[in-house]
Amino acid sequence: MEQQKKTTTVRKRSVPHSDANVSQRTYRLKINNTLRAVYVVGTKLKINLGSCAPLQSKFFSVKCTPNVQCQVFSQVQAGKSLSSPQPLGRDTVLLISMGAASLQPNDSKLSVRFYGDKSEILGNALLHLTAVEISLDVDADRDGIVEKNNPNKASWKWGPNGHGAILLVNCDSESSYYKKVDSESEEITKVADLKDMSKMILRTSGPPVLPEGYKLSLHISQTDAERVRVFRARSTKQAEASLKSIFLGLFQKEYPLVLNTKQLANEVPYQGGKSDLVFYVEGLHFPDKDFDGLLTINLSLLEPFAEGFPETPIFTDKVMFRVAPWIMTPNTLKPLEVFVCSTSDNHEFLKGIKQLVQKSGLKLKICHEYMNRGDRWMQDELEFGYIDSPHHAFPVVLDSPRNGDLDNFPYDVLLGPDFGYVTRYASRIEVSSLDSFGNLEVSPPVTVNGKNYPFGRIIIGVAFPTTEDGRNMTKVVQDFLWAQKVQEPIALYSDWLVVGHVDEFMSFVPAPDRKGFRLLLASPDAAYKVFRTLQNKGHGDAKMFPGTEEEVSVDMILSDKEFQTENGYVQSCIDWNRDLLKKELGLEDEDIIDLPVLFKVISEKNRAVAFYPDMVNMIVLGKNLGIPKPFGPQVNGKCALETETCSLLEPLGLNCSFIDDFTSYHKLLGEVHCGSNVRRKPFEFKWWNLEL
Amino acid sequence: MEQQKKTTTVRKRSVPHSDANVSQRTYRLKINNTLRAVYVVGTKLKINLGSCAPLQSKFFSVKCTPNVQCQVFSQVQAGKSLSSPQPLGRDTVLLISMGAASLQPNDSKLSVRFYGDKSEILGNALLHLTAVEISLDVDADRDGIVEKNNPNKASWKWGPNGHGAILLVNCDSESSYYKKVDSESEEITKVADLKDMSKMILRTSGPPVLPEGYKLSLHISQTDAERVRVFRARSTKQAEASLKSIFLGLFQKEYPLVLNTKQLANEVPYQGGKSDLVFYVEGLHFPDKDFDGLLTINLSLLEPFAEGFPETPIFTDKVMFRVAPWIMTPNTLKPLEVFVCSTSDNHEFLKGIKQLVQKSGLKLKICHEYMNRGDRWMQDELEFGYIDSPHHAFPVVLDSPRNGDLDNFPYDVLLGPDFGYVTRYASRIEVSSLDSFGNLEVSPPVTVNGKNYPFGRIIIGVAFPTTEDGRNMTKVVQDFLWAQKVQEPIALYSDWLVVGHVDEFMSFVPAPDRKGFRLLLASPDAAYKVFRTLQNKGHGDAKMFPGTEEEVSVDMILSDKEFQTENGYVQSCIDWNRDLLKKELGLEDEDIIDLPVLFKVISEKNRAVAFYPDMVNMIVLGKNLGIPKPFGPQVNGKCALETETCSLLEPLGLNCSFIDDFTSYHKLLGEVHCGSNVRRKPFEFKWWNLEL
Repeated sequence: MEQQKKTTTVRKRSVPHSDANVSQRTYRLKINNTLRAVYVVGTKLKINLGSCAPLQSKFFSVKCTPNVQCQVFSQVQAGKSLSSPQPLGRDTVLLISMGAASLQPNDSKLSVRFYGDKSEILGNALLHLTAVEISLDVDADRDGIVEKNNPNKASWKWGPNGHGAILLVNCDSESSYYKKVDSESEEITKVADLKDMSKMILRTSGPPVLPEGYKLSLHISQTDAERVRVFRARSTKQAEASLKSIFLGLFQKEYPLVLNTKQLANEVPYQGGKSDLVFYVEGLHFPDKDFDGLLTINLSLLEPFAEGFPETPIFTDKVMFRVAPWIMTPNTLKPLEVFVCSTSDNHEFLKGIKQLVQKSGLKLKICHEYMNRGDRWMQDELEFGYIDSPHHAFPVVLDSPRNGDLDNFPYDVLLGPDFGYVTRYASRIEVSSLDSFGNLEVSPPVTVNGKNYPFGRIIIGVAFPTTEDGRNMTKVVQDFLWAQKVQEPIALYSDWLVVGHVDEFMSFVPAPDRKGFRLLLASPDAAYKVFRTLQNKGHGDAKMFPGTEEEVSVDMILSDKEFQTENGYVQSCIDWNRDLLKKELGLEDEDIIDLPVLFKVISEKNRAVAFYPDMVNMIVLGKNLGIPKPFGPQVNGKCALETETCSLLEPLGLNCSFIDDFTSYHKLLGEVHCGSNVRRKPFEFKWWNLEL
Repeated sequence: MEQQKKTTTVRKRSVPHSDANVSQRTYRLKINNTLRAVYVVGTKLKINLGSCAPLQSKFFSVKCTPNVQCQVFSQVQAGKSLSSPQPLGRDTVLLISMGAASLQPNDSKLSVRFYGDKSEILGNALLHLTAVEISLDVDADRDGIVEKNNPNKASWKWGPNGHGAILLVNCDSESSYYKKVDSESEEITKVADLKDMSKMILRTSGPPVLPEGYKLSLHISQTDAERVRVFRARSTKQAEASLKSIFLGLFQKEYPLVLNTKQLANEVPYQGGKSDLVFYVEGLHFPDKDFDGLLTINLSLLEPFAEGFPETPIFTDKVMFRVAPWIMTPNTLKPLEVFVCSTSDNHEFLKGIKQLVQKSGLKLKICHEYMNRGDRWMQDELEFGYIDSPHHAFPVVLDSPRNGDLDNFPYDVLLGPDFGYVTRYASRIEVSSLDSFGNLEVSPPVTVNGKNYPFGRIIIGVAFPTTEDGRNMTKVVQDFLWAQKVQEPIALYSDWLVVGHVDEFMSFVPAPDRKGFRLLLASPDAAYKVFRTLQNKGHGDAKMFPGTEEEVSVDMILSDKEFQTENGYVQSCIDWNRDLLKKELGLEDEDIIDLPVLFKVISEKNRAVAFYPDMVNMIVLGKNLGIPKPFGPQVNGKCALETETCSLLEPLGLNCSFIDDFTSYHKLLGEVHCGSNVRRKPFEFKWWNLEL
């Protein structure tokens, strides 16, 4: 190798070139010594010749092997070749770089000779160099493939022209029996679990081994360690083999844990030659109040100094991940599965739902009594959503802190392979009826004053902030919802209702025109108009709830002044929400349909419940609506309230089915929507393409 | 008043005007009823005539008093006047606004008449209106004056063209005796305390009283309540009077507490006519990990419905504050006060410091032994900074969790009127030597790759992230520093030192050229060069520490190979920091001066201390530097190390004074900088003018 040494062509400049993107490392030569250094391709070694030269040095010359590039910066203008002695200034600097990885350790050389006044040699300094290529790689361009050394891999930018890798919270369970959420386990027990993680590749190129004492170390901050875990595939070939033979103990050895809260830094093997070391990065926590979703993983090359001294990280490569947010699905998305409870008394309801679901070409999933223990409020216990990344996506159920008798359903039944689970814990004293997820909805996509919400906006109900003793959705859930960022929530006023859920006065249905949907609002005013019209047309004696104890005529309803006052109050509460929804969703009155619904004020605190089945509390399955059957006044054998509702919704191409939920839901202060849940197809639009 | 009623000129449009900035309120008329409404100037009432009209109505007419503006929107094109019957459509909408506040309740009127097919009158609806002007005002344009209804008052924008009001943490103490931090008290006990708060004014205009049941309510969120408190001046006149007569009990009644964590909403008086209600807003917490510094205060007008029903907020005005960050002051800022400790053994040091401080025209503040209890490390116990707002500014000391015997000094001595105090608490087990504030410095202003840091960047020292058992600055302090945002911190590697402070190897001095400063770095390499030059010139027998036990010659130092290896290691540690500082501060080698300092490695863990007084650990008072006297080899009656250091610094116009800290500081592992502290003049530049 020594024979290959030859004079380099060296670029000379009088002012140091300041390239902010190139990492420069200060390096010092030792006179009459041979030093050994590992160099990382893409960086520069900066050697101040003036400071390391023997005293009285006036000139210097440089030789190096062909793969070493050497630039000289000096205040003194120099000649063309550096093999002949050059004037040495106090600020003379060598910038060393190498274009390719070394084949053997120390296979590249640089020597500097220093001369005195009369060209007498004052000393030599020799440097043996080993060049390695190191790149910690992720899918920063979001195409599902881990590209090589993306220049933007260490940062996040939203939008279609953005960049930054994505991490899923590994919140599903690869086991369906004796299951637990995968991220709660410190080990990988099934191959299938790997696809819930993000691949990260350490690409290295260099000699078969690193010079003695050099090491690679993967490391994370203490804060990030609480949110991410890193596994390693022992080797690419072994990993592939293990995909076939899954023997648990052996398998865990194939995917050793590298980083977690107990191990913030860990040595990773340098494999030699050109090789890829594959890691699997596991997200542990969703964005929340104290976590913006961003995580950084670092890979450093450590240089030894001497026994007992800490190793110095001489090069660090970084990658950034953003944890995918939990995303809700509005009524305008295609339904996939419908969930209801079967109880001893809801046969009629189930029959109606079954017909509707069959008509819609969907499968009905029934939660039986041994599981629901009589708790029929399928809407309230959970909310379906999903998480998405370029490499994988799956549905995730958000379990409400409500915790009724349906409490075990989300975990015991829904959680499973590629079906995630997340919840937030609140103390029992904090939880109110407003924590049920009939009080958690999401609008279809909207544009508000030029700002796009392609995933719509989350809608929850709370008390007026000016009320001292109001009920609210618990803070941990609100914090979680706000932290997801992509569906910025709107807080409505729902505390005026006994139950207090937004789905008691609003819903969204698809529409072929305008914004692609209509907001449906319950409206006592619209109901009174129907009743007055009936009276006006001579149907004042038509009866609601015919044949029941509650039977009441149109005339009787219209003559009840107190009832009218109560409904005036309810209308003012709904109008308040109407004005806020118009503002926050950018709606006009033409985007809103008022459905005729009457309420009554029952509680000590003057809170309201629906007087007859609350038609706005419907299930929306594409164009098929399952609406609570209102049992309104019969005119010509038809229910006048159904007729009115159909006349409002059918022009939009919607099909209205009225489902009898009177005894089994309405009487218990809920309706069709409260008693059902729908898992829907995720958005086509990708959340990382949002411009936030 | 009835007589004044006249036909209005009404603008007619076929499409509703969508003005996103105007708050619209849905309002419903009642046929054959007189309703009363309070209207807030600047908003609109939207009345859907179609929905409130009697059945069979085909036409309508509108009359209103002159101060009421009424627009009609209808799908039907209408004529010029609305006093004659107009065609009524399903979507006919009235938009009501009023240009000025009412003089009396219900002094404005609007009446709508509905007609049938043949112009027969079907019904009338009457609305009595009371207009009020309401504006919750702050100094959103940051000129020190609370302007009226700034359109940007509800948001924050950084920069000279930005907006948003500013709040100080009320962290000083108006009392100098029996003191506590003012924000820990739930009451205002001194007039002077008001100037530490931000003024907020509720400006109202309207009738002498509001119609019955209407109220004004000031309110904040639960989260914000932990960070802000609001007081009210009982009335402008009374407040002025109380400025003169300060009788404590009376005074507290003059400034009642309106909002805190126990009271999230509170009624505030409507004073009638044109009046200002003054509030004082008190910041309680600095920005931190879980607090971005932004706070919102809301003012709502509440409308009564009926006894027992919650009042409805029909109008809400919002203002936003940002809590001023804690800002550090670099060495390049003008010194104001110098602090040192007096101990039984530091007479020489004190003499040197006194001379330097006198020469600089400053006052020296000495902490005496009864207070310091022998703890001389004035640098380590505290860091001086300040907080700034358009209305007020004062210095704030950050008390280190180090808690040596000097622990009480920041609170007992510094805290006082217009001198704030802040600290962060860590458990004793978390606190290490790296939590002393010799390990917390700040650079002068820099520009890095085009990004401006007009307040410089905070610099702390930690362990390499790749080290398992390294020491770090405790997380609560790091979180605090990062959260201030305006001086984005840089974490250097200082764990290689026994004491572990960044001030052991770096400092900044002012310079007339380049970036206005030089970074000084301790350099064993530079020191060896001095010693080799001495040997070369025949001064090999010149002695360091002459006449002491430690006396050692230049030859002896140069012949100690192990010592040379140790210093090689130290140089590599400092070089690592040098490279990081160059990158993170945008420096070139020409911005850095290497001061000759040697270290020795002493501890079990191979950590380093300065071998002779560490000249980089200096005090910087403008152009006057107080440098630890190195006791280097004497050549021609002069210390060669002093000569070298002077030759490096004097060309920048700096004056070097060498202070003897050998026995009283250096031997205890600290130097001049460790034993002193300087309070400096705040930046002229205002932090809110930063472009972040």
